[in-house]
Amino acid sequence: MVGRRTVAANQDEEAVLAVNRRFYDAFERGDLEELAATWEHSDRAVCTHPGWATIHGWTEVADSWGAIMRGGGAPQFILTNERAAVEGAIAWVTLDENLIGAGGASGTVAALNVLARGADGQWRLVAHHGSSVVSRSDPR
Amino acid sequence: MVGRRTVAANQDEEAVLAVNRRFYDAFERGDLEELAATWEHSDRAVCTHPGWATIHGWTEVADSWGAIMRGGGAPQFILTNERAAVEGAIAWVTLDENLIGAGGASGTVAALNVLARGADGQWRLVAHHGSSVVSRSDPR
Repeated sequence: MVGRRTVAANQDEEAVLAVNRRFYDAFERGDLEELAATWEHSDRAVCTHPGWATIHGWTEVADSWGAIMRGGGAPQFILTNERAAVEGAIAWVTLDENLIGAGGASGTVAALNVLARGADGQWRLVAHHGSSVVSRSDPR
Repeated sequence: MVGRRTVAANQDEEAVLAVNRRFYDAFERGDLEELAATWEHSDRAVCTHPGWATIHGWTEVADSWGAIMRGGGAPQFILTNERAAVEGAIAWVTLDENLIGAGGASGTVAALNVLARGADGQWRLVAHHGSSVVSRSDPR
């Protein structure tokens, strides 16, 4: 049973990370419709962009992604350190968004995403929190 | 049944928010032992302090809280906009930490916390991500 549960957990983690990648791919391409397909459209959806206050509810969250896409174009980035943990119908993912600067916009955004598995078996984001990692000589 | 489930959900949310407050109270008092009691001591524990890279695993997470407490003393803050969502044995909480500056340290930290309910029924933090809210004239 332990073996089976481990395999199942890994399959869940793979499914979660696949949706997480779909979300970032859609953002990078500036495809709001595809991005919306990776989110749960509910009141409990929450999103904190780097430096922003937290936004509550899918309608406002969607509007914020649209505004970012319209405002500055889609950033390019490489994802690293993607790690997923799954328990029941909820998963959380940490990763680094390593920005590849057009016009000097570089740096790293650390992110924590929460995903929920719907009644249809699909994982969708319910929470995203991204924040810029500040370079420092002493990591403390 | 809907009524019952709603009540149960509210009781879960209350329990989650109580642990969330215990965590912040312990941090404010500089009580690392009490803070540790509000966290799950596991490899899946993750923490992102404002401007920091993400820290993985309880040992490293605990060390980071200890370093912050030793480094600058405990910050004082008022929590607002605490909202919890619960699904099964996992909950996520968003809130604002409104810093009351000793020495001019003021401002708001937006936070996303994830909590897991252990086999003993106790909720404990498994993820914390805090980031400073930047004042801006145009929120977009």
